[in-house]
Amino acid sequence: MTWEVLSIIGTIAFAVSGAIIAMEEEYDILGVYILGIVTAFGGGAIRNLLIGVPVSALWEQGMFFQIALLSITAVFLFPNNLLKHWRRWGNFFDAMGLSAFAIQGALYAVAMDHPMSAVIVAAVLTGSGGGIVRDLLAGRKPLVLRSEIYAVWAIIAGFAVGIGAASEPWQLYALFVLTTG
Amino acid sequence: MTWEVLSIIGTIAFAVSGAIIAMEEEYDILGVYILGIVTAFGGGAIRNLLIGVPVSALWEQGMFFQIALLSITAVFLFPNNLLKHWRRWGNFFDAMGLSAFAIQGALYAVAMDHPMSAVIVAAVLTGSGGGIVRDLLAGRKPLVLRSEIYAVWAIIAGFAVGIGAASEPWQLYALFVLTTG
Amino acid sequence: MTWEVLSIIGTIAFAVSGAIIAMEEEYDILGVYILGIVTAFGGGAIRNLLIGVPVSALWEQGMFFQIALLSITAVFLFPNNLLKHWRRWGNFFDAMGLSAFAIQGALYAVAMDHPMSAVIVAAVLTGSGGGIVRDLLAGRKPLVLRSEIYAVWAIIAGFAVGIGAASEPWQLYALFVLTTG
Repeated sequence: MTWEVLSIIGTIAFAVSGAIIAMEEEYDILGVYILGIVTAFGGGAIRNLLIGVPVSALWEQGMFFQIALLSITAVFLFPNNLLKHWRRWGNFFDAMGLSAFAIQGALYAVAMDHPMSAVIVAAVLTGSGGGIVRDLLAGRKPLVLRSEIYAVWAIIAGFAVGIGAASEPWQLYALFVLTTG
Repeated sequence: MTWEVLSIIGTIAFAVSGAIIAMEEEYDILGVYILGIVTAFGGGAIRNLLIGVPVSALWEQGMFFQIALLSITAVFLFPNNLLKHWRRWGNFFDAMGLSAFAIQGALYAVAMDHPMSAVIVAAVLTGSGGGIVRDLLAGRKPLVLRSEIYAVWAIIAGFAVGIGAASEPWQLYALFVLTTG
Repeated sequence: MTWEVLSIIGTIAFAVSGAIIAMEEEYDILGVYILGIVTAFGGGAIRNLLIGVPVSALWEQGMFFQIALLSITAVFLFPNNLLKHWRRWGNFFDAMGLSAFAIQGALYAVAMDHPMSAVIVAAVLTGSGGGIVRDLLAGRKPLVLRSEIYAVWAIIAGFAVGIGAASEPWQLYALFVLTTG
């Protein structure tokens, strides 16, 4: 359950973020959808690749695809309202997506009995992978590599999950609020 | 048979396109070959990854490697003749490669019993993946994300194959001519 | 044993090179670590993907992770001393990493009974893949595509290993010194 909630939050936050950056770059409608999808699922694809889960497992997440498509459509329909607030809320969306996916990536790696180093890398890459691919496709230098603040939280989240300090749902939610804030 | 013909057309078109863009960027001989190969096989590699076929299955396509290498060599030997016509024919080559690979990617996903959403994504990514990787390696913003026209055709092709509207060879060729033009 | 020695040399050389380029781009501490890790392991990840080994096999290389982290930390602690010499030694580090990893990639592909073409591609991509990903993440055009000299050596190394001309340890070391120099 916790897993699903975190996934839904992360998917919406990253799909919106990818779609808005595509619109800033004046990409066309399909560029907007592709960038939204890639941002929402890129981190998970890279994580699956690195921890040995078939990337095609993403296809079983039918519901998340629909959530991502709906979020992108919302951005596309109300661009003016959203772009106006983006400078203020953009970083918040990024932080929310990163935090939700970092915790989720760490849980994934822990469930597969990977060592601590793999748990932290899974947290960092699931959290930041989508944003890195998004920035590359938009012709920008990856934001997450320049502002350390993001990745630090992903590492802390990975570490907390890895040592078992956070395993109950309420602990995971607290971790999410902490790393987002 | 249809499959092979589409693959050959797509491989030649993308290998030429990758080699020419590498020459525009003044890359050296090996950059030209690497960009040609990556453009010709990048889309298929990404598709295999996403629909759960080992990427190493590409190695069984020995003939296509040779076709790609021959095409790149032709570009390298006659650059002046080709670069002169590139501005006129470049888009045509791109459209041809995208169309051939989009249909082929959709057939692939259908043969594996994937759901409709996966068929369309396989069509879009097999068609556009090679060009996206090519543009990234050339330090450009991916063309396919900026000009919607390309990806629209890939989606239509994927949809037509996915619903079974195109399955006989002559239907697939008609689809190819339609989406290229 | 030869395998391990080549891996250690390549890992140190590429980790240092990735970390220094991240510092040139003024990335923050985590950008420096991520770029160092990606440069050191990116080539191997791409090679594994292409020749059909699970990418997650990288996690068994615990010692190499520690070597990479130590090398990056050394760069981070003594940046002034290193950056001063970078323009002179940078290319040497790149050549050393490429040469060590190209030979190692070729040995890997040979051990898996892949055909000659796959051996050469494995050599080229293991040698140059890390540097290409590094340059993309730093917002630069991939150096290896512009200066043919690097990739030529990787091809020669792959060919020599592929035809069995180099299989004894002393031959492999000679090949390493030759391709580095």
